[in-house]
Amino acid sequence: MASPAFLIDGLQYSNWSEALFRQVREGGLDAVHVTICYHETFRETVANLERWNRWFELYPELIRPVRTAADIEAAKREGRTGIFFGLQNCSPIEDDIGLVEILHQLGVRFMQLSYNNQSLLATGCYEADDPGLTRMGRQVVKEMNRVGLTIDMSHSAERSTLDAIEHSERPIAITHANPSFWHPGLRNKSDTVLKALAASGGMLGFSLYPHHLKDKSACSLASFCEMVAKTADLIGVEHIGIGSDLCLDQPDTVVEWMRNGRWTKELDYGEGSASAAGFPPQPDWFRDNRDFGHIAKGLAQVGFSPRDVERIMGGNWLAFYRRAFEPAAAAPAARTSHAG
Amino acid sequence: MASPAFLIDGLQYSNWSEALFRQVREGGLDAVHVTICYHETFRETVANLERWNRWFELYPELIRPVRTAADIEAAKREGRTGIFFGLQNCSPIEDDIGLVEILHQLGVRFMQLSYNNQSLLATGCYEADDPGLTRMGRQVVKEMNRVGLTIDMSHSAERSTLDAIEHSERPIAITHANPSFWHPGLRNKSDTVLKALAASGGMLGFSLYPHHLKDKSACSLASFCEMVAKTADLIGVEHIGIGSDLCLDQPDTVVEWMRNGRWTKELDYGEGSASAAGFPPQPDWFRDNRDFGHIAKGLAQVGFSPRDVERIMGGNWLAFYRRAFEPAAAAPAARTSHAG
Repeated sequence: MASPAFLIDGLQYSNWSEALFRQVREGGLDAVHVTICYHETFRETVANLERWNRWFELYPELIRPVRTAADIEAAKREGRTGIFFGLQNCSPIEDDIGLVEILHQLGVRFMQLSYNNQSLLATGCYEADDPGLTRMGRQVVKEMNRVGLTIDMSHSAERSTLDAIEHSERPIAITHANPSFWHPGLRNKSDTVLKALAASGGMLGFSLYPHHLKDKSACSLASFCEMVAKTADLIGVEHIGIGSDLCLDQPDTVVEWMRNGRWTKELDYGEGSASAAGFPPQPDWFRDNRDFGHIAKGLAQVGFSPRDVERIMGGNWLAFYRRAFEPAAAAPAARTSHAG
Repeated sequence: MASPAFLIDGLQYSNWSEALFRQVREGGLDAVHVTICYHETFRETVANLERWNRWFELYPELIRPVRTAADIEAAKREGRTGIFFGLQNCSPIEDDIGLVEILHQLGVRFMQLSYNNQSLLATGCYEADDPGLTRMGRQVVKEMNRVGLTIDMSHSAERSTLDAIEHSERPIAITHANPSFWHPGLRNKSDTVLKALAASGGMLGFSLYPHHLKDKSACSLASFCEMVAKTADLIGVEHIGIGSDLCLDQPDTVVEWMRNGRWTKELDYGEGSASAAGFPPQPDWFRDNRDFGHIAKGLAQVGFSPRDVERIMGGNWLAFYRRAFEPAAAAPAARTSHAG
């Protein structure tokens, strides 16, 4: 008997509401990784978790929290969409490594080590120089490995990303980015990074955010699916999924927050520009959560087998979460440290 | 086959260390409710949880976190002491009802609605007047009921306590106090409170803190056990347990923090006095975690059956936790509120 096919989105930052929860149900999503932080402090991130707790209380027929791959399987059986949390920045752990486990206990399953800029842990993709993982970065990678909080390097710079792949004892992810061979850009990833990611058992989620697409909003479905096929040839079909980066119903003030947080007084336009500062329009074949089926059809049209389409649309993420979200096998903890 | 006897301490605020974890194992404790807050903010309380996470990592052969009664049964089988958390004050929820669920998700299972003083929720036992539960207090009681965070009124005033018993749809606890018929004092509880507590299915944990004992540090074991017997006659043996209030290895600066927090510039001595401001010495028959057996023997000597001794020493708490720590059966959440 064939196992049921899962539809999983590896990243969204939508402006959630009952209407969007109904939309993810209409689209048949079994699970969504939702971003709950760009620049927020720990306390502000907790406030965002509180909003989700309230939504889980209000809409139990549509959504439920999930913390493990088994929870996602249960969500599917129940006809609900499983929601788990991720941080696009390490600001919520402040300078306090103990917050890694606290956030995992609250359901956070992904954390980016940096978001565009230098962080306490690693370098972001818009910095001029990338010295790699910091001292604290190496400690936090170890702690994230221990508790089962997955490293995400979507917005990190190349050397830091390769460092994270090397230092991490567990596979990492790039939840939302595309290969730079298709669309060059600081946010997309080199063949070197993609190959190292796959060699370590990691996952790439293909982004549908127009700034990450060849021809941006005018990108064709065929071009996107041919890129997926080329990436599968490069790193193996078992290492790829979707991380749509959908930002539905967000006002343009939100993309300003994503890019500028509280770190600058001069406006930074990120991948946009002064004349196109807002959210770009989605391609017409992927407007919202109801359009994942178009991608699945497009993948079949470029030659993927039904089994491989299922893997890309969710099966690979589910298998990855099964390995990534549980605490590491308990090893005796080091009771002393040797400072140099 | 007889079920195994459980030894559970319903409250401690010791200065935890490997030595004390070894001591609770030597004393045969299956579970301890540990206080992690007197006046701390949310963020400070999280820092205290981080310390516990580190202790769980360092001493897995001695202690483990427990969140349900079933976890305590597992801890006993594993030969470890189960630790769960409580707040002696509502300061960690700030003015934010969403933090009730967040703290429950982090393993907190008891919260006092007030500590000696008026709080945002209820009145403390040292205030001159007690107007009862506040508007926010009634909302928080409902939310605590929903998520399975148990109300503790050990340091609250009488009317507020009766209000909490009445408003709460689930049984509440007074984790550490004694009857005022034995030793009058603002912290001990009237027959009215004790009867209402028991009638609603609640629990009283007898305190071994000398200021709560008749003759304080000179209190005799026989006097203590006769008081337990009298309380059992008054409210029923199924509603009583131990909440030792042990504050082992704490410097006297800690009792000053407990009494004064950051709320006063003039020193408050609580149950002590300027000439006896520090922690009082424990009675010689109950010095630390190795002396619970003395109480069990003393209870047998005043006529409790072996079965009743087992209930008082832990069985009643375990049965209470089984009812108290799980979320309430899901009812449709109210999506709108009607403000007056």
